[in-house]
Amino acid sequence: MSKKPLILVTNDDGISAPGIRSLIKVMNTIGDVVVVAPNSPQSAMGHAITVNSTLECNLIKIDNGPQKEYSCSGTPADCIKLGINEILKRKPDICVSGINHGSNSSINVIYSGTMSAALEASIEGIPAIGFSLLDYRWEANFDSLTKYIERITKTALKEGIPKGNALNVNFPKLKEKEIKGIKICRQAKAYWIEKFDKRTNPQGKEYYWLTGEFINEDNGINTDEWALNNGYISIVPVKFDMTDHNNIKRLNNWKF
Amino acid sequence: MSKKPLILVTNDDGISAPGIRSLIKVMNTIGDVVVVAPNSPQSAMGHAITVNSTLECNLIKIDNGPQKEYSCSGTPADCIKLGINEILKRKPDICVSGINHGSNSSINVIYSGTMSAALEASIEGIPAIGFSLLDYRWEANFDSLTKYIERITKTALKEGIPKGNALNVNFPKLKEKEIKGIKICRQAKAYWIEKFDKRTNPQGKEYYWLTGEFINEDNGINTDEWALNNGYISIVPVKFDMTDHNNIKRLNNWKF
Repeated sequence: MSKKPLILVTNDDGISAPGIRSLIKVMNTIGDVVVVAPNSPQSAMGHAITVNSTLECNLIKIDNGPQKEYSCSGTPADCIKLGINEILKRKPDICVSGINHGSNSSINVIYSGTMSAALEASIEGIPAIGFSLLDYRWEANFDSLTKYIERITKTALKEGIPKGNALNVNFPKLKEKEIKGIKICRQAKAYWIEKFDKRTNPQGKEYYWLTGEFINEDNGINTDEWALNNGYISIVPVKFDMTDHNNIKRLNNWKF
Repeated sequence: MSKKPLILVTNDDGISAPGIRSLIKVMNTIGDVVVVAPNSPQSAMGHAITVNSTLECNLIKIDNGPQKEYSCSGTPADCIKLGINEILKRKPDICVSGINHGSNSSINVIYSGTMSAALEASIEGIPAIGFSLLDYRWEANFDSLTKYIERITKTALKEGIPKGNALNVNFPKLKEKEIKGIKICRQAKAYWIEKFDKRTNPQGKEYYWLTGEFINEDNGINTDEWALNNGYISIVPVKFDMTDHNNIKRLNNWKF
C-alpha cells in the first residue's frame, strides 16, 4: 500500500469556522492532516505577512478527528510559512485552504486570504488549492461540497498541479444534485464599485464603512463568473508571476 | 495651456515616511497632488482591505507644499479606494505609490503594500505606478531618484499605461550618476527561504520572528533582478488578472 499523502490545511475565517471544519473532515479521508490556521478571522487580508510583530502558534484540540491542529496569531500566508518551515517534519504533498465563507471568484482572488495561503504554498513549490463557497453565512451548507472536494483533491494529487500555479476553486450556492459539474475557467474581468457609508461616532467624529457593488462586464463563457452563474464549480489556475508578458514589447517602445 | 494632471499619492510606510515626502515633492512639479496615505506603517500588508472595522481619514498638514493631504487608518488599498471614491471630485489622471523603503522586485511584489495600492488603482481603471528603492533604511537617499521618477511619470502620462497594468518600478541603491538607465523587465522567479527565530517571552511562552533569505535562481537578463544587480532601474508591467492562461488547456485534460 502506498504511503498516505501529508496534507497541510489552513483558511482565513479562523480555525473554528465551519468551512475549515468541513474541509478537515474530507482531508482526513485522503491523508494525514496537519492544520495550521489563524486563531481569528483574517478575511480580505490579501497576501499580508507578519514582519513587524511576533507570531504565536499553539497546539490545540477542537474535535475528535485524527488531525493535528495549531492555532496561530498570524495571517493565512504566515500559517503556511510556519507550517512548512517550522511545524511539519517534511514538505506536505498538498496544501488546501478554505472552505471560505464567500466567493473568491474573479477579482476577489486579489483580496483573498484563502487564496493568498494557496499562492504562498505554490511559491514554496507545494501543490495548493483554495476552496470557496458563494455563501457568506457562518451557517452555510458545506455538506453538498464534500464529494467534489474529495474528487478535486485526489485528481490534483494524481495529475499534478502545474508548477507555479495554485487552483482557485469556487462552488455555486446549490444543493449537490443541482451542481452540473466542474469547469476550468479564466478569471472574469470584474470589479467592485466602492461605496463608503459615512457615519458619525458618539463623540461627533466621522468614520467610514466600506461597502460596494460587484460589477461583472465580462460575459465570456470561459470565465469563472459564467460557470458559477450556470450551476458549475469553477477552477481557475492562478499564478504568482504577475508580469503582463504581453505588454513588455509595448513598453519597450516608450521614449523616456 | 493644458490642464494640470490630477495625481493621487499613497504609500505603505506611512504618510510621514521620507520616501513619500520625496515622491510628493516630485509630483508637485508635475500636477495637482492629493495625498491619501496610511497614518502608520503597513509594510507587507499585501492586498489587504478593511472590511470588518471602520476607517478614519483626516485632513492634515505636514509641510508647506501645495498638496492636499489625508491621513487614513486603513491599508494602502483602502487609501486608494477612499481617495478615488470619496475624497477626489474627479478620477485622478494617475496614482503613484511609494517611494517604498525597500525592494518590491520579483516575488516581493506579491507581499507589497506599495504595489497593492497601484494594482487597486489599475483595477479601478486608473494608470498607476509603484516606486521602490532597494534600501530599507529610514534615512535612505531618495534625492538621486527624483529626476528618474519625474521622467517615468511624465512618460507614463504621455504614452498611456496599458489597461489592466500597473508599473512596478524598482531603483538600485546607487548614486544618480551611477544609474545606467531604465530596463523593461519580467518578474524574476525568486523566493524566500523562511527562517523562524524562535524565542521565549519573559512569561516563558514561545513566540516567533519571521526572517528569511532571498533566493534568486533565475538568471534571465530580461528579469528585474538582473537589471537591478547591473545598475539599471527595473520596470515590470504587473497585471491583476492572475489566471495562468497557458495552463487552462492542460487542466482541461484532467479526468475528475
